[in-house]
Amino acid sequence: MADKIFRVNMTDLSAAVEKVPATWMGLGGRGLTSTVIAAEVEPTCHPLGAGNKLVIAPGLLSGTQAANSGRLSCGAKSPLTGTIKEANSGGTAAQMLARLGVKALIIEGIPQPDSWYGLHVTAAGVTITTETELIGLGNYEVIERLNARLGDKIGVISIGPAGEMRMTAANISIKDPGSRIRSSGRGGLGAVMGSKGIKFITIEASEAKVEIARPEDFLGASRAFAKALIDNPISQALGQYGTNVLVNIINEAGGLPTRNFTAGQFAGHEKISGETMHDTIVARGGKPKHNCHPGCVINCSQIYNGKDKKYLTSGFEYESIWAMGADCCVDDLDHIAEADHIMDDLGLDTIETSVAFGVAMEAGVLPFGDGAEVCRMLREEVGRGTGIGRIIGGGAGSVGRAFGVTRVPTVKNQAIPAYDPRAIKGIGITYATSTQGADHTMGYTIATNILGVGGKLDPLSNEGQVELSRNLQIATAAIDSTGMCLFIAFAALDDANCLPALIDMINARFGIALTADDVTNLGKTILKTERAFNLAAGFTSQDDRLPEFFRTEPIAPHNVVWDIDNAAIDSFWEF
Amino acid sequence: MADKIFRVNMTDLSAAVEKVPATWMGLGGRGLTSTVIAAEVEPTCHPLGAGNKLVIAPGLLSGTQAANSGRLSCGAKSPLTGTIKEANSGGTAAQMLARLGVKALIIEGIPQPDSWYGLHVTAAGVTITTETELIGLGNYEVIERLNARLGDKIGVISIGPAGEMRMTAANISIKDPGSRIRSSGRGGLGAVMGSKGIKFITIEASEAKVEIARPEDFLGASRAFAKALIDNPISQALGQYGTNVLVNIINEAGGLPTRNFTAGQFAGHEKISGETMHDTIVARGGKPKHNCHPGCVINCSQIYNGKDKKYLTSGFEYESIWAMGADCCVDDLDHIAEADHIMDDLGLDTIETSVAFGVAMEAGVLPFGDGAEVCRMLREEVGRGTGIGRIIGGGAGSVGRAFGVTRVPTVKNQAIPAYDPRAIKGIGITYATSTQGADHTMGYTIATNILGVGGKLDPLSNEGQVELSRNLQIATAAIDSTGMCLFIAFAALDDANCLPALIDMINARFGIALTADDVTNLGKTILKTERAFNLAAGFTSQDDRLPEFFRTEPIAPHNVVWDIDNAAIDSFWEF
Repeated sequence: MADKIFRVNMTDLSAAVEKVPATWMGLGGRGLTSTVIAAEVEPTCHPLGAGNKLVIAPGLLSGTQAANSGRLSCGAKSPLTGTIKEANSGGTAAQMLARLGVKALIIEGIPQPDSWYGLHVTAAGVTITTETELIGLGNYEVIERLNARLGDKIGVISIGPAGEMRMTAANISIKDPGSRIRSSGRGGLGAVMGSKGIKFITIEASEAKVEIARPEDFLGASRAFAKALIDNPISQALGQYGTNVLVNIINEAGGLPTRNFTAGQFAGHEKISGETMHDTIVARGGKPKHNCHPGCVINCSQIYNGKDKKYLTSGFEYESIWAMGADCCVDDLDHIAEADHIMDDLGLDTIETSVAFGVAMEAGVLPFGDGAEVCRMLREEVGRGTGIGRIIGGGAGSVGRAFGVTRVPTVKNQAIPAYDPRAIKGIGITYATSTQGADHTMGYTIATNILGVGGKLDPLSNEGQVELSRNLQIATAAIDSTGMCLFIAFAALDDANCLPALIDMINARFGIALTADDVTNLGKTILKTERAFNLAAGFTSQDDRLPEFFRTEPIAPHNVVWDIDNAAIDSFWEF
Repeated sequence: MADKIFRVNMTDLSAAVEKVPATWMGLGGRGLTSTVIAAEVEPTCHPLGAGNKLVIAPGLLSGTQAANSGRLSCGAKSPLTGTIKEANSGGTAAQMLARLGVKALIIEGIPQPDSWYGLHVTAAGVTITTETELIGLGNYEVIERLNARLGDKIGVISIGPAGEMRMTAANISIKDPGSRIRSSGRGGLGAVMGSKGIKFITIEASEAKVEIARPEDFLGASRAFAKALIDNPISQALGQYGTNVLVNIINEAGGLPTRNFTAGQFAGHEKISGETMHDTIVARGGKPKHNCHPGCVINCSQIYNGKDKKYLTSGFEYESIWAMGADCCVDDLDHIAEADHIMDDLGLDTIETSVAFGVAMEAGVLPFGDGAEVCRMLREEVGRGTGIGRIIGGGAGSVGRAFGVTRVPTVKNQAIPAYDPRAIKGIGITYATSTQGADHTMGYTIATNILGVGGKLDPLSNEGQVELSRNLQIATAAIDSTGMCLFIAFAALDDANCLPALIDMINARFGIALTADDVTNLGKTILKTERAFNLAAGFTSQDDRLPEFFRTEPIAPHNVVWDIDNAAIDSFWEF
């Protein structure tokens, strides 16, 4: 069965199944979402209007037996940044869509105001149904009720109240194997889905298998690939402590942004660290090691129970814990977990929303450290769409504008995540130059700046950071197209067997003969496609800048500022 | 006494008096504010940070006996648009500053958070005093208390609570001859003043006279100039009905934006027209004819009393009445007047704030037409800085982002004023290309498109509109530098004696010999200086666009869309 493009038009409520154009054939995940958006979306259109499209695509290897290949890419013009956007996530949807032969689901148009729909995807196409029952509900209940409606094997992609209200911090939620929530977090894609009147997309469970052109080659390569992942020491640390292993590491490096980016170390770091989290999870009968999609061999996720030993949250990531923890000075892991749960349920990007709270704390809206008030405001203000709730639901930049705050950690209006660019210079290049606003996952220089993966580059030196970020951004654009989790990068950078095995799998899947250079060129092409979209939308090199305060306010303990020349930043694009 | 630059640094609370650099000598008003900002403000700086400067400058002829020469220019990088900004206003301050020999007052730096100051300007310089008593008060009470403190002859430039809260719709208020309020309305300059911790600037009354190099020449020219203004029929209509004479005219033309820009005519237009206003004013013992600064011969202002025959508002302009009236569907002039009073008192741009209410009505925050609720929200939400109050105080774009509205009438994030660009094409070119966001005063094509001044150009045709807007924008930049009210343009365009007399006055004042070409070149230079600032700040031709909906939604009664080519728009800058 050849893969198809499933296309839905929400203006006239029609659906079609189309052949994959030849030029899209070798693309998947981010490579495909960005290509479709660049081809079909007017760069200057209103992101919440009829001209924007939401493109959902599994990766090239999604649905196969390849380890860690279950990432789903969601793309659109972002209402938060105004740039092109791809946000990817675990969960079961990517693999399920791939098995149904869905190369991409393209959703276009907008329906009449205040009309809501559910989409259901089968191998035959998409059906569109008016929805009333689930409108206004949180993602947890939406998944539960859809499981009850259609059986718990279905896949679910949904938005919470934040997406319904078209808040620009709204994310898209993806059901994981335990009917919990993974998020396509960044850039407000939940608002795009909300603007199209779609509360949820359900995906029929299928026994069908993805076609493999050369099954034996695939099997051999997939074993070598899985071994590389399993043997990698960072993979192992991620499995033990989750991504939150980074709290102590980044704090030690002096790059843990604290109290709305006014310091690089957090006094309460031990209380919110991966080690403390691990012990708490074990003591409360949670699950310290857990996968976000079938076939993952790293298992960096976890189930975090509350004091009552009942489920509180899962997929409890370093960046979420940093944002509500160090950045808001909340040193109580239970408050952070509760906030994480509420944000998942409302369908809010935990980074954007928590950094927005940090700016609100600086503005005096609530005190730094008041985790209980954060939870109350999430439920009663953001969840109900009050004035202050909408300001926070608009993200960090929104709070800064509403309260006239000048220390607003954003690039292209997207909140800067958990690594201070003054103390870790490479990541500052990624924040500044990324086609998608500040986003650590676009070129994770922490690997080389801090973790010693792929070599070692002094985080405090300006030398070599542009090249490091460029190489990683190119590689990441390619990895984001495969359906692979970004965490394969640690093995890919340090284990000579990993990357060849990955390429072998792609070749065996499609019966082609890509080289490593082809993969690099794919990454370059994706970045250039995305950049061209942004330039046509009106972005310039002046947008590839960190906020002014990073240049003027030194950060303790290293007492360093962001001091990489603008010309050096702009040289990023010389490739 | 030679003119001086008065410079105040709010970071170290110092003040200095400086010689005027030779290159600034021939400049005044907007020409000077924009030149200073371009020279001294980093285009990418945060508008509310230490790097921005607030520049206040009388015009070249301010302080002389020239009719209508009392406009004051305030300039800065705008926190609303991110562009360079000049907003000018009547009131007594321009003439008083000019008589003290103040060529420009430049305010730089920012003080410690939550510290407030008053500035006092005398011929000797500026003194800075800590202020507590007046913080939080509205402009009316600020003026009253300062009159009591320093005598009612002082000049006052102040901000209301909106500026203190750094709302991006906040304006700067200027005391008028009756101790009432005129506003430097657009672009959020009140937030810049607020960010610098300045609640008010008082100006010592002085008997000093502005030096005139050739007094007899000046006297002759000023008489010819005043006669041209007095004889002009549009000046006369403005004196009779105020600027609000336009409600019926623009409604008839089908270009009166109604119900958040969804129609071009308002059923309630008669109830809010200049004719109705005039009769109401007369019936209630108000004053239909009133000046905003001494020496005005047009007198387009008025005192509007409430039902109780007591003062309700003044300077009640067409654009304010349109915005709260037709755009919000409020057809009760008393509600509009009350809202106008509150906005003046809080220090809010009436256009930006009222258009923001129109967008909020579209979002369902309050019903269209509910003037009482508007007044309540202005007092209790905006005035107190609640969440929804700050969303509205952030202007139309802010409301659109907070509620995910796509029909948001802004250019460069500044609200489009009272003339629909689909039905009056020339003004659309001005909105799109202005260096300052949507602003009718930057190139008032209504003169030629609708009023038949300076020729006649069909408002519904695309032909010639770029050239019309270009010529008017160049002329306006020059006029805005003289201290002259923009309404001299009607006489200048149609009376052959007017412009030569204006140039003669400038030449007589400074003992120079400018030609009409020099004046045109001054206008061109100002526009290019402003544009260069914006380009360096990251603006591109993609920002010189009207919102998408103007191209896709035809407006009744003419059922026309905005359909001028982007390439034609961009040709504006070919001069």
